[in-house]
Amino acid sequence: MGVVIPLEEKAEPGIEPLLGLVGADMDRVNQTILSRSASDVSMIPEVANHLISSGGKRLRPMLTLATAGLCGYQGSGHIKLAASVEFMHTATLLHDDVVDESDMRRGKLAARMLWGNEASVLVGDFLLGQAFKMMVEVGSLPCLDVLSSAAAVIAEGEVMQLSAAKDTQTSEDDYLAVIRAKTAALFGAASEVGPLLAGRPKAEIAACRGYGLNLGIAFQLIDDALDYGGTSAKLGKNVGDDFREGKITLPVVLSFRRGTTEQREFWRRTLEKGEIEDADLEAAIATMHKHRALEDTVERARHYGAMARDALELFPSSPWKFALSDVVDFCVNRAF
Amino acid sequence: MGVVIPLEEKAEPGIEPLLGLVGADMDRVNQTILSRSASDVSMIPEVANHLISSGGKRLRPMLTLATAGLCGYQGSGHIKLAASVEFMHTATLLHDDVVDESDMRRGKLAARMLWGNEASVLVGDFLLGQAFKMMVEVGSLPCLDVLSSAAAVIAEGEVMQLSAAKDTQTSEDDYLAVIRAKTAALFGAASEVGPLLAGRPKAEIAACRGYGLNLGIAFQLIDDALDYGGTSAKLGKNVGDDFREGKITLPVVLSFRRGTTEQREFWRRTLEKGEIEDADLEAAIATMHKHRALEDTVERARHYGAMARDALELFPSSPWKFALSDVVDFCVNRAF
Repeated sequence: MGVVIPLEEKAEPGIEPLLGLVGADMDRVNQTILSRSASDVSMIPEVANHLISSGGKRLRPMLTLATAGLCGYQGSGHIKLAASVEFMHTATLLHDDVVDESDMRRGKLAARMLWGNEASVLVGDFLLGQAFKMMVEVGSLPCLDVLSSAAAVIAEGEVMQLSAAKDTQTSEDDYLAVIRAKTAALFGAASEVGPLLAGRPKAEIAACRGYGLNLGIAFQLIDDALDYGGTSAKLGKNVGDDFREGKITLPVVLSFRRGTTEQREFWRRTLEKGEIEDADLEAAIATMHKHRALEDTVERARHYGAMARDALELFPSSPWKFALSDVVDFCVNRAF
Repeated sequence: MGVVIPLEEKAEPGIEPLLGLVGADMDRVNQTILSRSASDVSMIPEVANHLISSGGKRLRPMLTLATAGLCGYQGSGHIKLAASVEFMHTATLLHDDVVDESDMRRGKLAARMLWGNEASVLVGDFLLGQAFKMMVEVGSLPCLDVLSSAAAVIAEGEVMQLSAAKDTQTSEDDYLAVIRAKTAALFGAASEVGPLLAGRPKAEIAACRGYGLNLGIAFQLIDDALDYGGTSAKLGKNVGDDFREGKITLPVVLSFRRGTTEQREFWRRTLEKGEIEDADLEAAIATMHKHRALEDTVERARHYGAMARDALELFPSSPWKFALSDVVDFCVNRAF
C-alpha cells in the first residue's frame, strides 16, 4: 500500500509499476491459489500446478487487485476474488487445450499431453468449482453476479469461435463478438469487482468494467497478431497454431477481405479445407504483410487500448491509475 | 399444495407419487431449463437440448422441489435452484462422455458423437455458468455455498475415478469415496437447498442432506449393477460400458476380492491391461453371479436406501415424506 511512484520519474511503460503496487496482495493471491488447488486426489494439484506454476503473467487477478486499490477498498475480499478470476482463467485454458488439441502452452507441454484430455477437462471443472466456492465465501452477491455471468459468456464465446472455425466468411464484427466474449468478458469482470467490493458509485463501476473490457479486446488482438508475427520462444507456443487450427482471427479476416481471388482461394484451401502444405505458413505471413493485416490488427488494438485508458479518466490521478494506464501500453507493445 | 394421497390407498412404490406432487413446479423448472439453455449461438441450445430432451428422469431437480415442499417453502427460489441442479448434472454428463469416450447416452448417440468433443466440453461449461447465474439470482448465500461446494466435490470425484481406473486393487472404501463425491454429493446438495431456502433448523437441513446423500449412493450402486445386469434397451446405454472402459465398480471389487487366482488374472487382463476378447463380458457377468457380486451390490444399495429413509424420520407424516420414501424404492428396485 505504501508504494508511491514519483510522477516526475514515471517508470518505463510496462507492467512493473503495477507489479510494485500489487506485490504484497499478489503474494496472498498466490498463496490462495496454491492452497485452493490442493486436494487429496493427487492428480488435481499436479495438473493444476503444472499450468499455474508455468509463469503466466497473472494479469487478470492483478486487475482485480488494482481496481480495488484504485477505488480505495480496505477489506480482504479482493484476494479471494482475484484467485477466483485466475482459476476461471486456468480452467478455460485447460478446456481450450482439449478443444484446440494444442500440444504446447506457455512454452511447456500442454497438460492434456501429460495427463490426457480427461484430466484436463475434469481438473478444469474442479478449478471452476473452487472459484465459485471462493466467490461465495467473499459473500458479495453483486460480485457473484458479475463473475458467474462472465463464466457463461466466456463459454458462449468459445462455442461461437468453434462455430465460426474454418469459415472465411467471418466478418470483423463476428470476430469482435467472439473475442469480446471469450477473452474481454473476464478482463471486464475482473476489473469490475474491485469497485463493486469497495461500494463505489455506478459510474466508477462502469468505468472499471469498460477499462477491463477494452483492455481485453486489445490484449486478444495482439495475441492474434503474435500468432503470426512472433517467434516460438517469445510466444510460449508454436507460431502458426491458429493457422493450423483453421481459427479465423483478425489478421486472416483483413487479409481475406483485402485479398485477390487467388489469395482468397489460398485461405479457403488452408483454413476451410485444412489442406496445409509445408511453405503455407510462410506464404500466409507474407500475404498478411502485403495487406498490412498484422500492422492494422495492432492498430485496432491501439484503438481499444485508448478506449481503456479513457475509461479511467473519471478517476483522479493516483499511482494506481498510472499503473493501470501503463498496463495498456504493456499489452499493446508486447507484440512488436 | 393441494395434492393429498390417501394413506390407506398409497400408490405403488415408485416415482409416481412424487411426480404428482411436484408436477406443476416441474413444468416451471422445464420452462426455465428451456429458456436458460437458449443462446444466439445456435450450437448451444442444439447440444444442450439433445441431452436435456432425451428423457432423463430429472430426479435431482425433483429432490430440490420435494424437499422444499416437505419443509413448507412458500417462495419460488426452488424453481431456479432445481433448474441449476439439472444444469450441473447435464454439464457433468457432457464432460463425462468426453472423458469416457462414450458413444451412447440415454439410448441416443452421445452429443460428442454428433457435435464433437469440443462442443461437449464448451456447452457443458456454458451450462455450468448458467447454473451459477441462476443460483446467484435466487440470492441465497447458504444455497450458493452448498451447490458450489458440490460442484468442486463432483469434479474431485471424477478425477478420483480417473486415477482409480483400471486399478483392480481398488477397495470397497475407495469405490465408495468415488461415488459419494461424483454422484451422491449432488443428490445431497439438491436435497439440502430445499430446507435451506425454507429457513428450517439445522437438524432438518442435515436430515434432508443425509436423505439425498444416501439415496445418491444407493442410486449409483444400482447403476453400477445395471451396467452388468440390464439389457441395452432397459439401460439406454450399452451393457458392459464400464467393463470396456476398465471402470472399477463394486461388482468388480467384490468379484476380484472373492475370486480365485485365475479369476483375478482375468480381471487384471481385461480391466487393467484392457485386453478384452469376444466372450469376456459374458464371462465377467457369469463370474459376478458366481460370487453373488451383483446381488450384494444391490444389497448394499438397500442398506443406503434404508439410511436415506431413516434420515427423513425426523419429519412428521406428509404426502411429501411418503413420496420421498417411495423414491428410495424406485431407485433400488429399478435394477431387477
